[in-house]
Amino acid sequence: MALNKVAVVGVGLIGGSFALALRRAHPDVRVLGVDRDAGNLDEAIRRGVIDEVADANAIGDVDLILLAVPVRQMRALLEVIAPNLGEQTVITDAGSTKQSVIAQARAVLGGRVGQFVPGHPIAGREHSGVAAAASELFEGKNVVLTPPVECAPAAVERVRSAWRACGANVLEMPAETHDAVFAAVSHLPHMLAFALVDEFAARPNAKSLFSFAASGFRDFTRIASSSPDMWRDIALDNREALVEEFDRYLAHAESLRDAIAAGDAAGIEKLMSQAREARNQWLAGQLDYFNDEAA
Amino acid sequence: MALNKVAVVGVGLIGGSFALALRRAHPDVRVLGVDRDAGNLDEAIRRGVIDEVADANAIGDVDLILLAVPVRQMRALLEVIAPNLGEQTVITDAGSTKQSVIAQARAVLGGRVGQFVPGHPIAGREHSGVAAAASELFEGKNVVLTPPVECAPAAVERVRSAWRACGANVLEMPAETHDAVFAAVSHLPHMLAFALVDEFAARPNAKSLFSFAASGFRDFTRIASSSPDMWRDIALDNREALVEEFDRYLAHAESLRDAIAAGDAAGIEKLMSQAREARNQWLAGQLDYFNDEAA
Repeated sequence: MALNKVAVVGVGLIGGSFALALRRAHPDVRVLGVDRDAGNLDEAIRRGVIDEVADANAIGDVDLILLAVPVRQMRALLEVIAPNLGEQTVITDAGSTKQSVIAQARAVLGGRVGQFVPGHPIAGREHSGVAAAASELFEGKNVVLTPPVECAPAAVERVRSAWRACGANVLEMPAETHDAVFAAVSHLPHMLAFALVDEFAARPNAKSLFSFAASGFRDFTRIASSSPDMWRDIALDNREALVEEFDRYLAHAESLRDAIAAGDAAGIEKLMSQAREARNQWLAGQLDYFNDEAA
Repeated sequence: MALNKVAVVGVGLIGGSFALALRRAHPDVRVLGVDRDAGNLDEAIRRGVIDEVADANAIGDVDLILLAVPVRQMRALLEVIAPNLGEQTVITDAGSTKQSVIAQARAVLGGRVGQFVPGHPIAGREHSGVAAAASELFEGKNVVLTPPVECAPAAVERVRSAWRACGANVLEMPAETHDAVFAAVSHLPHMLAFALVDEFAARPNAKSLFSFAASGFRDFTRIASSSPDMWRDIALDNREALVEEFDRYLAHAESLRDAIAAGDAAGIEKLMSQAREARNQWLAGQLDYFNDEAA
């Protein structure tokens, strides 16, 4: 089925990039934009990201709705959209937690939850807003779909083909696996970076510290410039997996701290060498999920 | 005084880049290279980084010696260099800890420690070896000198002008301040990144984790590809300040973990917003040491 009309709710980095990428593949697609920030919508029109501004209660008849808003806003939006939801309309989302989004969709859509396909494009930047949107954002990136059993296969296929048209690789996994994996490789690092910058910022000598922070610090903390709205919601919605990751990490960091305090040169070097080796293997593409039986 | 002859001990990223940068400013300078890796020296000659391979005991008569080796190797090198050290020769180093290097220099050089000018170029990359060296590495970067009271002003001036010729800004501060500041903004983040990658690498599902790690993880862990030799030494030599930073950080990270576990939305958002605001101010150049009375 062709995508003739699409609605993007939350016309920011992700929603805006999706619109731009889809438009490039399907020049005739008509994109409606929903956003609570009128200035952002004006800019989205001016930049040719969307064709038309719409209200959430008036987008139920499009072919595909993408919800690209903080994960704790999904429920309220679905409640506005649902009463006018067309039978052929498919809804997907771009949230970084999946079990909580599925729970919200089930609660609101009930028997029509088969029209909802939970998704997560693994492509972010620390900048937000439509000004940061780019048609190439998803090229070669992974998009993870976590369709629950109720999901209509045709609905999954529509979402899959939309993301493919944006240049992404589309994968499927259970929502629980998704949330556990991303708690580790994405949510935890964001929390650690936020905590580091905040800890420095509160000190009386913050300026002296920041003045000597260099490229290592800049890259380590890049994700601490991410949207607090978005990440607060992720932390809360994936809290169980995230707290587990926190505890594993803090225990391991503490053991490195203890090795340093004890002057354990061999132990410190072993940990560092293992880390470097693993990271370099990862960069070389040698840590590949699809060759991993345990995955 | 002109720099006619310079020796670089440890012809890696930092030593090699120093040689290349100096050569660009002073085309007639002659650069001797000392390294325990013969292959690295061959490559340094082939790349035009050094003019000549030398032994550490035969470089005492040059104008300037740069020790660019892991900080726990300084003492043994100074012991080899010292017996043949010329009266006009100045030694400097590029180590990331300064109190420990000064202690080593005092122990070996005794009454001649005034010829030693401790320094730290704030420019690194996660790659090591002469192949990573680049003449522009220090352009616009800070080099911190931490001359102790014994230091001869002319010796400090010679080191300062060499780094200026490399395009760097040269600053001075007490070694203790240096070690405290860099424990926070550099040494701690390195340890945190090493610990994160190592913790993931040891898991049975490491491959699934790494397969979904994206650009946020890549940047957060870039410094975990740094040299274990170098960073083990830094951790040990700056352990007092580093352990203090660890304890402050782990307590703050733990408080964020607790806020998440407790579902404290406002607390989480406050911490994230403060972090983002501070980082953005830093990127905008608004956290400037030289305007900071507390510095």
